[in-house]
Amino acid sequence: MKPVSLAILGSTGSIGLNTLKVVDQHSRRFQVTGLSACNNFKLLEKQIKKYKPSHVAVGQEGLDHFKKTGIKGVTFYPVKDCTQIASLKEVDVVVLAMSGTGALFPFLGAVRAGKTIAPANKEALVIAGDLIMDEARQHQARIIPIDSEQSAIFQCLEGQRSKPAVVHLTASGGPLRKVRSKDFKRMTPKDILRHPRWKMGPKITVDSATLMNKGFEVIEAKHLFNLSYSQIKVLIHPEAIIHSMVEFADGSLLAQLGITDMRLPIQYALTYPERMPTGLKGLNLAKLGTLNFEKPDLKRFPALSLAFEAARLAGSMPAVLNAADEEAVGAFLKGKIDFLSIYKIVEKVVLRHTIVKNPSLQAILQADQWARIEAQKLIGS
Amino acid sequence: MKPVSLAILGSTGSIGLNTLKVVDQHSRRFQVTGLSACNNFKLLEKQIKKYKPSHVAVGQEGLDHFKKTGIKGVTFYPVKDCTQIASLKEVDVVVLAMSGTGALFPFLGAVRAGKTIAPANKEALVIAGDLIMDEARQHQARIIPIDSEQSAIFQCLEGQRSKPAVVHLTASGGPLRKVRSKDFKRMTPKDILRHPRWKMGPKITVDSATLMNKGFEVIEAKHLFNLSYSQIKVLIHPEAIIHSMVEFADGSLLAQLGITDMRLPIQYALTYPERMPTGLKGLNLAKLGTLNFEKPDLKRFPALSLAFEAARLAGSMPAVLNAADEEAVGAFLKGKIDFLSIYKIVEKVVLRHTIVKNPSLQAILQADQWARIEAQKLIGS
Repeated sequence: MKPVSLAILGSTGSIGLNTLKVVDQHSRRFQVTGLSACNNFKLLEKQIKKYKPSHVAVGQEGLDHFKKTGIKGVTFYPVKDCTQIASLKEVDVVVLAMSGTGALFPFLGAVRAGKTIAPANKEALVIAGDLIMDEARQHQARIIPIDSEQSAIFQCLEGQRSKPAVVHLTASGGPLRKVRSKDFKRMTPKDILRHPRWKMGPKITVDSATLMNKGFEVIEAKHLFNLSYSQIKVLIHPEAIIHSMVEFADGSLLAQLGITDMRLPIQYALTYPERMPTGLKGLNLAKLGTLNFEKPDLKRFPALSLAFEAARLAGSMPAVLNAADEEAVGAFLKGKIDFLSIYKIVEKVVLRHTIVKNPSLQAILQADQWARIEAQKLIGS
Repeated sequence: MKPVSLAILGSTGSIGLNTLKVVDQHSRRFQVTGLSACNNFKLLEKQIKKYKPSHVAVGQEGLDHFKKTGIKGVTFYPVKDCTQIASLKEVDVVVLAMSGTGALFPFLGAVRAGKTIAPANKEALVIAGDLIMDEARQHQARIIPIDSEQSAIFQCLEGQRSKPAVVHLTASGGPLRKVRSKDFKRMTPKDILRHPRWKMGPKITVDSATLMNKGFEVIEAKHLFNLSYSQIKVLIHPEAIIHSMVEFADGSLLAQLGITDMRLPIQYALTYPERMPTGLKGLNLAKLGTLNFEKPDLKRFPALSLAFEAARLAGSMPAVLNAADEEAVGAFLKGKIDFLSIYKIVEKVVLRHTIVKNPSLQAILQADQWARIEAQKLIGS
């Protein structure tokens, strides 16, 4: 069998590294054709030597470095041109392992090239889900999400002839689930970054604490599975063993379960429609003993309601929500604002925004820019 | 759309009544063509008047009754000839709602007639699973199980391109899960018949107490899903919300969840591949709060090990296991033997049996008869 040719965009981040572990586990099945990384060019260099990609995108410092050292058989691109790698003829699957809105152009490029796209990135679908999904249908690009919740829904729906009535997105509840509301104000980035279930980057961990992350997933799920917002519910499940569930018209639910290791959904996307051993230890429910569930507390975590509302309003609003949140969380992580101000700032920006309906890509990017500027005004210097 | 024509064999029992409730819920979708009942001909008469079947099988007392009263447009059969109803040309789906080995012939008849069969009956598959499944393949008969666990597995596998690595059958643990082993001896039928999760007949409730019922389901699942015994595991899950799970090669699991109401799996089988509203309230995991899991205690419930062993030995052994158990449980329910003697008797009969490999139908029935006689000897008078 011809190996599957991969482009891994964001190969030095957490998802990128886990993707390469999956490649290691099934090295004959995959060929790494493209890699990209923004900053960590030293790790990228090691990856180039090990996986021998023919196309690599990297930030300016890395470009300068590789220009000096040179690596035979590798074409280098500025990181902003990683879209070219995503749409290379020889690439079968594009893993979008980078975070941030920077993933939007490579996502669109891959979709237009009719690739299979395995996105871990949330932002692109949140801000431009309609555009991406329209293009995906047009170019018959297949999207197999890597995010554990979206992968769970994808797996539950795989081959089912019935459409889902409701999708239940599970959420660990984040690091503040057991913290009293009155203590939220004095939560430092350090307090927040001790996330109980999934090891993730700092931005997404803060978004888990506010439940904004789950709000983004609501928007993602809407686009990925062609749902209305009223068909999406959030369920707190601290053990994060049930990765999400689908409920059908008859009240029957299918759930996908597994250990909390990103290699599972990554491998699923890369070997789809086959399933192969992961080399990881399996789930032992008897040993685990108990799974818990509770309703999300929307009073303590208003960001989730706000996300549902922004999602319902649609148009340019999700882009504004995302941009304002990125700025506010960034300011929190730098110690510029306190934890509760994240929500306050995002809410204010959202309320000030005049929605553009059915926005073009340009209108989305304008809304994004506008929201960042508004947020920065509120953050202050 | 032409209504689906149903034959409901065992229409006055618990599964039969629930099947008719499903028919009531979607009355335009179904036409009841055949009904059968052994004894309760008064209830059967009401059902005949309401659902207007054209073919009815009933025990001798009922036959006599209907001969006297007469019902226009209904052909009556002795209950042993209900196989004829199962294979009627105009029948689409045969619901095997009767318990006991008596279901074997109608099951085979329906399979040979290429029907869709919705079995709630365990015995037929336990004693003659190989024969039934061979004939089903030959005649392209579809079997959509109604048993909640088997239905769950069927639903989890529906449309999946990967074969299951392991099937996890969940078990509520039965009425003795929290009872100390030393108290087992003095358990009366009355103690046992307070089953915590599913309302069922007395025989199956006693089998739930010994976990023999789960052992039978292991054998059933083996046949229904073409598994080896090493691919089947049992997991105690007292809330009975996860009805069973399928684990794939990558360690990912799919689970089917729902409220504990038999109308769910019955309706699924009857409307397959569609799913329709049930009119029942849905599952509320947040309200439920907790799901628990534990390993089955094979020391306290040796019947489960015995069933696995009989299952592994195969041939005529499962038929012997089933027959000996039916006799022993019957004797327990009549107060002839104590609770612990159920296992002792079944084990002795199993140990005394000389296995017939690849048994014919006749050999299976002989083994069944032999086991009943052996069990009765041990029960005494």
